[in-house]
Amino acid sequence: METVVENPDNVKLSLAQLNIESTIELEDIFEKHDRSCLILLNQRISIEREVLFKLWEANTIHVCADGGANRLYEFFNNDGLRAKYIPTYIVGDMDSLNPEVKNYYEARGTIVVVQETQYANDFMKSTTITSLHFNLPALPKILQSKNYDLVNGIDKIFNEARRLSWDDEPIHMVVLNAIEGRFDQTIQSIAQLYRLARDHKYFKVSYITPNDMILLLPANGVWLSFTSNFRDEILGNCGILPLAGSCTLRSTKGLKWDVTNWNTSILGGKISSSNRFVGEDGCYINSDTDIIMSVELKSDGLRKWFGSSKISLGI
Amino acid sequence: METVVENPDNVKLSLAQLNIESTIELEDIFEKHDRSCLILLNQRISIEREVLFKLWEANTIHVCADGGANRLYEFFNNDGLRAKYIPTYIVGDMDSLNPEVKNYYEARGTIVVVQETQYANDFMKSTTITSLHFNLPALPKILQSKNYDLVNGIDKIFNEARRLSWDDEPIHMVVLNAIEGRFDQTIQSIAQLYRLARDHKYFKVSYITPNDMILLLPANGVWLSFTSNFRDEILGNCGILPLAGSCTLRSTKGLKWDVTNWNTSILGGKISSSNRFVGEDGCYINSDTDIIMSVELKSDGLRKWFGSSKISLGI
Repeated sequence: METVVENPDNVKLSLAQLNIESTIELEDIFEKHDRSCLILLNQRISIEREVLFKLWEANTIHVCADGGANRLYEFFNNDGLRAKYIPTYIVGDMDSLNPEVKNYYEARGTIVVVQETQYANDFMKSTTITSLHFNLPALPKILQSKNYDLVNGIDKIFNEARRLSWDDEPIHMVVLNAIEGRFDQTIQSIAQLYRLARDHKYFKVSYITPNDMILLLPANGVWLSFTSNFRDEILGNCGILPLAGSCTLRSTKGLKWDVTNWNTSILGGKISSSNRFVGEDGCYINSDTDIIMSVELKSDGLRKWFGSSKISLGI
Repeated sequence: METVVENPDNVKLSLAQLNIESTIELEDIFEKHDRSCLILLNQRISIEREVLFKLWEANTIHVCADGGANRLYEFFNNDGLRAKYIPTYIVGDMDSLNPEVKNYYEARGTIVVVQETQYANDFMKSTTITSLHFNLPALPKILQSKNYDLVNGIDKIFNEARRLSWDDEPIHMVVLNAIEGRFDQTIQSIAQLYRLARDHKYFKVSYITPNDMILLLPANGVWLSFTSNFRDEILGNCGILPLAGSCTLRSTKGLKWDVTNWNTSILGGKISSSNRFVGEDGCYINSDTDIIMSVELKSDGLRKWFGSSKISLGI
């Protein structure tokens, strides 16, 4: 039977009673990981400066998808600060990278990887180079020697490397500018979350917008963990968004409005939105398919949080 | 058989060979209609000033959904201009309308309609008042006398009026700020397009963002008409976005990349995006379900277009 329950604003959940198949730590996106990358797509950077700096610091490598490098360059109004944020790679067909920007970053150590194929977009090319960076020790030598096909050589190297050996250890990936641009590109970015989850499960992907964090929840019981402090300071409204077609939320625990056996669909206009987390240290969502979640990130809270974490912003 | 064909940049189509069930004129959103409204939702107004003024002028009534009125107020930095753009109605539960803004607009003739029910959002309440405005001659008297239930009285009046008599003549509706905010709200707005098409077919709805126009294409053969001039100046990339689940594009004609019998889905990552119009005076899309389309609106083009149309912007 379909039910909706309104909960108090703080609820203590017993994990023992939940069928948890996977776990996502929401604070993770702001924490350091060895195998991690920040990807910048080609839209104006509209997140707050402190958030960009924090994400930059938290991630080991930084990849600009083609004209994403222009946006990074333009984000700074002086070279002093600009020179501290040099991407590891610029990847794409280079139909939008400004020559001036290319020269600026190349002179400071950025590796520019031209891949002209139109069978992948610049975002996909960026994820491929990221995979190789962490999984193929010979990559620097290959790129330095420029001994690869400029059309789709990186993809060929990737397929070969993955066939031979691959450890599928997680890589944390934060992507900027995936959602804020043209709406057809927004929806392509959403499709990309499903594609990565299917073909490259080792990526732990979040999109960060000026308003929210967007991620794909795996089906069959996921535990989203956070501290109540992080929840109260940073996390605002959330939504569970059936963008790949209708599905059933079998059970949620720890939302302000929890549901069971709840069919959700865009066509039917039944969507859990403007909801929020009330679980003290997490929230449980059991959906019968993978499903998109958006979680509002409160700007004031982020600024305060980063201040109190005493991490130098380099300004 | 599934096919994709790349077309030249200008194609003359013969309408006689197409099975056209409905027509949408894309230039219509900027043209005057007696039965038309502009709705402002509660997000920062981020479209260009000229576009707002043009849309204001093109639409007969102007409805602010609750705090949408704050955004309109804040959009102007002086009263001179602000006083020229007075909404007809402010509608909602009024949990976000600033008292100062309420007083300002009420003193200048805006009718404030409080509806506290949480079974509808402020956007839905705005569409209801719009329907009544054009269909119920007694509405001004009812609102003036304040003789309605502040919880959901407008909805009751609507249901009663619709039951008694209704002509379902089209009402043109342009909505601002539906897409640019929190992502769960974006997706609710998309669901709202489907809901309006199902329950209130007489509304001709477009969402306008700083980047694009978003609309719901009816299934079974729609002709999107435009002049080649409008196409070249204003319309950029477009996407056909299967947001209510997978469906089949039986046939498209007049896109740069036309398809036949093409299954499209977010889950499968098969989406027609970064496409564009090449039909000289229109484009034909035959989908087996209603489907969302986004059409890029080029800022430069819009500014030029409005300039050449010799319509005073009131500045």
